[in-house]
Amino acid sequence: MATITLPEAEVETGKQEMKKSATKYVYFFGGGKADGNGKMKDVLGGKGAGLAEMTNAGLPVPPGFTIQTEACREYMRHGAASKDVDRQMDEALAKLEALQGQKLGTGENPLLVSVRSGAKFSMPGMMDTILNLGLNDKSVDALAKVKNNPRFAYDSYRRLIQMFGNVVLDIEKPVFDEIFDAKKKQKNTKFDTGLDAKALLEVIAEYKKAVKKHAQRDFPQDPHEQLVMARDAVFRSWQNDRAKHYRRINNIDDMLGTAVNVQIMVYGNLSDTSGTGVGFTRNPATGTKEFYGEFLLNAQGEDVVSGVRTPVPIRELQKIMPDVYDQLRDITTRLENHYKDMQDFEFTIQDGKLYMLQTRNGKRTGLAAVRVALQMVEEGLITKEEAIFRVEPNQLYDFLVPRLDEKSTKVEVLATGLPASPGAAVGQIVFTADEAVKKAGHGAKKNPVILVRAETTPEDIHGMEVAKGILTSRGGMTSHAAVVTRGMGKCCVAGAGDITVDEKKREMRVKGQTFKEGDWISLDGTTGRVIKGKLNTIPPKADDPELMTLMGWAEPFRKLRVRANADIPRDAVQARAFGAEGIGLCRTEHMFFGEKKLPHMRAMILAREEKYIPAALAEHNRKQRTRLTLKQLEPGLQSDVRQRAQELARRGALKKLLPLQRKDFIGVFRAMDGFPVTIRTLDPPLHEFLPRREDLMVEIAVLEATKPKSLKLTGLRKLLARVEELHEFNPMLGHRGCRLGITYPEITEMQARAIFEAAVDVAKKGVKVHPEVMIPLTATLKEMANQAAIVRRVAEEVFKEKGTKVDYMVGTMIELPRAALVADEIAKEAEFFSFGTNDLTQTTFGFSRDDVNKVLPTYLAEGILKQDPFAALDRDGVGQLVRMATERGRKTRPTLKVGICGEHGGEPSSVEFCHQVGLNYVSCSPFRVLTARLAAAQAAATDTLKVEGGRTK
Amino acid sequence: MATITLPEAEVETGKQEMKKSATKYVYFFGGGKADGNGKMKDVLGGKGAGLAEMTNAGLPVPPGFTIQTEACREYMRHGAASKDVDRQMDEALAKLEALQGQKLGTGENPLLVSVRSGAKFSMPGMMDTILNLGLNDKSVDALAKVKNNPRFAYDSYRRLIQMFGNVVLDIEKPVFDEIFDAKKKQKNTKFDTGLDAKALLEVIAEYKKAVKKHAQRDFPQDPHEQLVMARDAVFRSWQNDRAKHYRRINNIDDMLGTAVNVQIMVYGNLSDTSGTGVGFTRNPATGTKEFYGEFLLNAQGEDVVSGVRTPVPIRELQKIMPDVYDQLRDITTRLENHYKDMQDFEFTIQDGKLYMLQTRNGKRTGLAAVRVALQMVEEGLITKEEAIFRVEPNQLYDFLVPRLDEKSTKVEVLATGLPASPGAAVGQIVFTADEAVKKAGHGAKKNPVILVRAETTPEDIHGMEVAKGILTSRGGMTSHAAVVTRGMGKCCVAGAGDITVDEKKREMRVKGQTFKEGDWISLDGTTGRVIKGKLNTIPPKADDPELMTLMGWAEPFRKLRVRANADIPRDAVQARAFGAEGIGLCRTEHMFFGEKKLPHMRAMILAREEKYIPAALAEHNRKQRTRLTLKQLEPGLQSDVRQRAQELARRGALKKLLPLQRKDFIGVFRAMDGFPVTIRTLDPPLHEFLPRREDLMVEIAVLEATKPKSLKLTGLRKLLARVEELHEFNPMLGHRGCRLGITYPEITEMQARAIFEAAVDVAKKGVKVHPEVMIPLTATLKEMANQAAIVRRVAEEVFKEKGTKVDYMVGTMIELPRAALVADEIAKEAEFFSFGTNDLTQTTFGFSRDDVNKVLPTYLAEGILKQDPFAALDRDGVGQLVRMATERGRKTRPTLKVGICGEHGGEPSSVEFCHQVGLNYVSCSPFRVLTARLAAAQAAATDTLKVEGGRTK
Repeated sequence: MATITLPEAEVETGKQEMKKSATKYVYFFGGGKADGNGKMKDVLGGKGAGLAEMTNAGLPVPPGFTIQTEACREYMRHGAASKDVDRQMDEALAKLEALQGQKLGTGENPLLVSVRSGAKFSMPGMMDTILNLGLNDKSVDALAKVKNNPRFAYDSYRRLIQMFGNVVLDIEKPVFDEIFDAKKKQKNTKFDTGLDAKALLEVIAEYKKAVKKHAQRDFPQDPHEQLVMARDAVFRSWQNDRAKHYRRINNIDDMLGTAVNVQIMVYGNLSDTSGTGVGFTRNPATGTKEFYGEFLLNAQGEDVVSGVRTPVPIRELQKIMPDVYDQLRDITTRLENHYKDMQDFEFTIQDGKLYMLQTRNGKRTGLAAVRVALQMVEEGLITKEEAIFRVEPNQLYDFLVPRLDEKSTKVEVLATGLPASPGAAVGQIVFTADEAVKKAGHGAKKNPVILVRAETTPEDIHGMEVAKGILTSRGGMTSHAAVVTRGMGKCCVAGAGDITVDEKKREMRVKGQTFKEGDWISLDGTTGRVIKGKLNTIPPKADDPELMTLMGWAEPFRKLRVRANADIPRDAVQARAFGAEGIGLCRTEHMFFGEKKLPHMRAMILAREEKYIPAALAEHNRKQRTRLTLKQLEPGLQSDVRQRAQELARRGALKKLLPLQRKDFIGVFRAMDGFPVTIRTLDPPLHEFLPRREDLMVEIAVLEATKPKSLKLTGLRKLLARVEELHEFNPMLGHRGCRLGITYPEITEMQARAIFEAAVDVAKKGVKVHPEVMIPLTATLKEMANQAAIVRRVAEEVFKEKGTKVDYMVGTMIELPRAALVADEIAKEAEFFSFGTNDLTQTTFGFSRDDVNKVLPTYLAEGILKQDPFAALDRDGVGQLVRMATERGRKTRPTLKVGICGEHGGEPSSVEFCHQVGLNYVSCSPFRVLTARLAAAQAAATDTLKVEGGRTK
Repeated sequence: MATITLPEAEVETGKQEMKKSATKYVYFFGGGKADGNGKMKDVLGGKGAGLAEMTNAGLPVPPGFTIQTEACREYMRHGAASKDVDRQMDEALAKLEALQGQKLGTGENPLLVSVRSGAKFSMPGMMDTILNLGLNDKSVDALAKVKNNPRFAYDSYRRLIQMFGNVVLDIEKPVFDEIFDAKKKQKNTKFDTGLDAKALLEVIAEYKKAVKKHAQRDFPQDPHEQLVMARDAVFRSWQNDRAKHYRRINNIDDMLGTAVNVQIMVYGNLSDTSGTGVGFTRNPATGTKEFYGEFLLNAQGEDVVSGVRTPVPIRELQKIMPDVYDQLRDITTRLENHYKDMQDFEFTIQDGKLYMLQTRNGKRTGLAAVRVALQMVEEGLITKEEAIFRVEPNQLYDFLVPRLDEKSTKVEVLATGLPASPGAAVGQIVFTADEAVKKAGHGAKKNPVILVRAETTPEDIHGMEVAKGILTSRGGMTSHAAVVTRGMGKCCVAGAGDITVDEKKREMRVKGQTFKEGDWISLDGTTGRVIKGKLNTIPPKADDPELMTLMGWAEPFRKLRVRANADIPRDAVQARAFGAEGIGLCRTEHMFFGEKKLPHMRAMILAREEKYIPAALAEHNRKQRTRLTLKQLEPGLQSDVRQRAQELARRGALKKLLPLQRKDFIGVFRAMDGFPVTIRTLDPPLHEFLPRREDLMVEIAVLEATKPKSLKLTGLRKLLARVEELHEFNPMLGHRGCRLGITYPEITEMQARAIFEAAVDVAKKGVKVHPEVMIPLTATLKEMANQAAIVRRVAEEVFKEKGTKVDYMVGTMIELPRAALVADEIAKEAEFFSFGTNDLTQTTFGFSRDDVNKVLPTYLAEGILKQDPFAALDRDGVGQLVRMATERGRKTRPTLKVGICGEHGGEPSSVEFCHQVGLNYVSCSPFRVLTARLAAAQAAATDTLKVEGGRTK
């Protein structure tokens, strides 16, 4: 297959070019020719590369030049731009002046420019922009004359002073706002437009005074000085808090820096044949092939953003300026054909003349991504192979959650918060978890409710479980609400800061409106929008035919199998529907938390040894050929006998759990007929099944202080004693995993029995069953051997009893660094490995996942970590262990099956890594199966097609 | 230097021999010649090898044969001995019969044999022995005739039935005891000797009935059947609980198995020219060159052990049987010369004829080990190089603790417990921690007290701190008392099971005596003895001239530097006295726990942000060019401002800590004049400095229930809120180490300032100071870079302020697996590495050190781990990371200094590993410095002398 060229590959080429000419800081564009081109996003930023490409394509772009990102990086390092940068900028400015026949801020028709940031990845609104640069006390009059519009000229000048004062000279915005508002008051007008040229001249005078006062210097009248200062301010804006925050959230490298684009000014607010707008070549929400966007007549970009005037759909332009409209359609179609992708563009019309200000590949929903890719293949724009890369695997989640049907009613967006957990939810507001439970009701009487909280806490869980969606006014993407709802696959909008939640009054206030308990709202967790009223929802469609077509192109490449993590039959059925090829992790402990099972589990843990001491003692005496009472035994042996008595007690309780586990396994095996099912033996420390220690301590202390004769006390004290016994300082590193199975072999025995009895049961009924018994938390060969021996012995026992055999394997989780280091040893006993990368990340980094949020925000903000290692697999550290264990394990056992069942199994870049390492499968939550399938296919296709980083950005 | 041969190397040779003749199961000895030799401990066990060697040397050894350990291992695997073993045993028996001119249990002069276990490492009393084998209803009469002593014959027979019944046929001991006691009652005698031949015949008859009843079979009359059954029972005894327990404690491999020694019987109880005894060629306690031991006339080994008769010093033998005495002296001298080591021997005299039953290198105290080694060099028996290996590094601890002066008074041993923490303590008994504090008193009025408890708990700590020594009746080598006292360097005898501690009555009972509060006892923590009354103690002498001589031989070999872990000036002075060549770990947090400092530390942690919010907000508004109130800020920024306010508050508190830290550093630098001092920045999570969360919860809940209006509540609730904020699920993996320094850079700043101000201060006074600032818990290069930048910046600031520079380094602990994996990266910033193997073991294994005791006993018992990995470095896992990090780090920075500062730094086998990996130094607690020095010298000498495992066992 031939090598195909994809956008990212082009960027690579651009990068090389940059290296060759490391000292070229300034790239000119104009007069139909540009120094740079569209491939040079690394160097010129997205905007600069787009401008160069459009210029080269002969499109009407306001000419100018781009100061490349290396200049910004140097500025960050040295605190000043180099002389080379200054010199090259001056040369470019001279060229621009020559091209335009104007001088910057000088002469009768002064050249005015905009100075804009433009990084490799779009960071809308995060950095600073300065317009109208070049205006001063003299040139403003020239402009007034040229444009024949003094008000326009003075308004432009006062805007420059305001922007420059704020951005360059660090003067607080209110300083200017107060002057402006006072002037409006004085002139008795509510609108900016109420100020005429004279009034604006007064404003300018006061602005200049304010600059002098606050910046201890005059507003610079020298246009060149303005330019240098503005350029440096844009460089600095790369480091402002907003920009840093945005990069942190969007995982953008802090070291990239921004380019600076200097362009001649064009004005959409000069006349009624002027205007400005934005658009997409196809519908970014649905993918429909339609010219989509909006524009404003006689306005500047600012006006669109500020929301004072409502833009009109772009098709209206066809009526108002048909020629311009046709030209715009023609240009954007050419752009789409050129970039072979849907374009997101900006334009300005100045006195009937169209200027293209920006074009880039448009952001889109998952639905749109799939549809656009398919259309483009049909249109012959891209190949099927390229289409595979046009969808971000994560976007497929859109197909698995309901969406709001925005056509069903008028959409009034109340606020936009963080898209914390995708999907849609429509329901009646409740403000407490208890109310949620009450209002949601049971059975037939179910009401949809939306739980609205300032922020959620673990105490709200019961309310979150019954609610359709969660809305919080505080907290980020990793807040409690966000994390919990994502786990539940439930829609959540978090940190909608415009909303005030008054939990006392039980109301929420936003945009001057007040909402009470029972009012309807709709949430869009995919975009973060909070919408007033009751919208309809569109159910998810994982079997969308277009999606199926795309997956059909992608799947043949895929080498990794994709399994699901599912603990109960229902989840297994769901996973299979999403295309899971087996269960990679069935956590048996989750089966114990059910109402029916927890009491038996507790009975096992609290096993009353007393009843069994005689039996254990008799056994001991028999073995030791002695005839002693418990007290006569030496302390060590006494405790041995007690332990044996506890074991006997545990065995009693386990007997009651056996049939319940078996039933669950039967359900899971049935759902996965024909596919392997990996079942992990008990993993969590036993205290997780008991009440919390501190709660018991408090309860006892309070009872002792108030009702010291309460009969409850004895029981509580006994319970606490056992809880204390099981208490651990670091449960993550505690008595769990195979350590439980080794100290309480009867637990492993019971579980193995339940597994094999279930397997034989379904096998007899014709189900193809492949149990894989997985031992958790091994660190040594001997642990593995100990547990594998129990499993194999029980398997043989069951097969003998039932007269039927099934194929099975015994393997282990690799989730401790030591296991990876001695994987060659462990593979002697383990027939498969499954990387538990959650725990492996915890131990490799020494990060407790439950506590890491105390550190992680700072680490991401300071750039110490680029990503949350629990979200995306840390290739350098954890990945090194994954690779090492895989290689060493297969050295011992070439047929070793290796997979991953941590949450990374559903994260695209981690899936790619698993493919590169050569694992056999990944396993993830059912809702991530589609994503993992596509990510695996992309990774393999990247290999096959010999392209690098084929994914589109 | 020539290759010298040391004992362990000989064993290796033996092992190879075993492999060559893997099917030789039975080794004959007798008639002046043996199949085996003394080097074959692996094959023949210690006893068998000794018997072979003595036979070959022409010494009077009762002839017999040894069934080697491989037969035992096969027995363990297959549950039965192979036919080869049976056949070879029969051949050896025939040879023995021919040599003796007797037949086993047959004929007029029947051959009788003993069947004894004998493993590679001595396991005294742990496995089973059968004597008089060959006796049956017929041969017993022949024996009576031959020996002309029917009572002797019947007593021997009834002993055989009893031992055989118990050991081979699994019949409980009381079955026989009851018969025997009933017979004594019937015959109206209190002593065994009160039963005559007739009575013994009756006992035999009843014994046989009991066997029939309990074992459902007759006592085997066929001598050959007896032999086979006895052999197999000895094999089985390798696996009994006592033996397993012993191996666990003594770190002996469960897979070694035992050999079985079959020897003709010799009797020390035949006449008044018979007897039995044990001895040493030199005094094992003091090392004095004297013939040392004890014996009993007309007695068997059993009688010595049972304590019914008191043995007499061996020199008495010279008067009674001067020829035998001379022969014994001659033989043992020859043995010592042969083995070139002090011998521990057993002998029996039968009718005036001397038989040697066993010889082995004798166990000895550290004092004796040093003295014997020196003597032997002087005597020309061994070289100086060999002498280095004659002392176990751990034994040097004996020189650092006081000993009991056993000559000062009569020594009455009340009980022997576990030697939990070495040294000696003499004091008055107290039974509670509070009483200990009360009685111990303060200042001039100090009384020495011994805290006696059934077992100690963390609540006893204050009592343990003031006590001279601790005695417990329960608990093992890893019990609370044992672990804590070892940490304190305080004498402890644990698990002295013969003692009953009655805490209610405040008394302890032992050997029928009762001891009350205030009674004097003496403890020997080195041997585990509890001694009645008030002995004198001999103070430690680390500068013992003999020790210094030995160290003088060893030290030139040493390549590893040895440093000490010391947190305060006093410890640093102590460490230097023991020969520490610097401080490898100075934990700054320990400085904060002092009375003066803790309040400031708490003030820092509880930093009241309110006071500083205006300042922080003003700063924010300035930076953002805004003018907003806190409430007007979006939630994320609000929290930024609050954090900054907290930081300002913390800086205030830190200022007060600075001079206190500086003072401590000055003291440490002074003590280590000329040597490097590694100072670690703050490591533990901050909640460790605050009250416990659960205590606060209980206090608040109780107050709320009883005094809801208490003014205390507000403060408590605030405190709890902060404690909750800092609460962690897994503190070990939490917000600690460099994570603190990164989130609270002001802490690192303060600490760096204290370090460099102190360094400059002492440097100005002529002290040679080499601070090495160590960043804890790094996992990434960027963490290291972040902290190193702060340290270097502060260093430059201080140097500039003070006008003086000092050399310093910045490095890091390697204590997380990820740090080892990316050590090449981290070494770009780190100038040295120090392995924190405590934490590295925790994360590599996923073992919480605070919780591991829930798992470890089972793991050791089941052989899943051979050793506690927190005691001896796990070479396969943790060691792999140590090696990897060292290699990778040095690849980046060839001059990288690498050390270890975990507790393994003072454990000999770990020190050996550090030497092998090529570290620059080890660092350990001051009391381990001598041990580490010798261990490091031995490891290096092993290299230089080209011997393997040179250490004596």
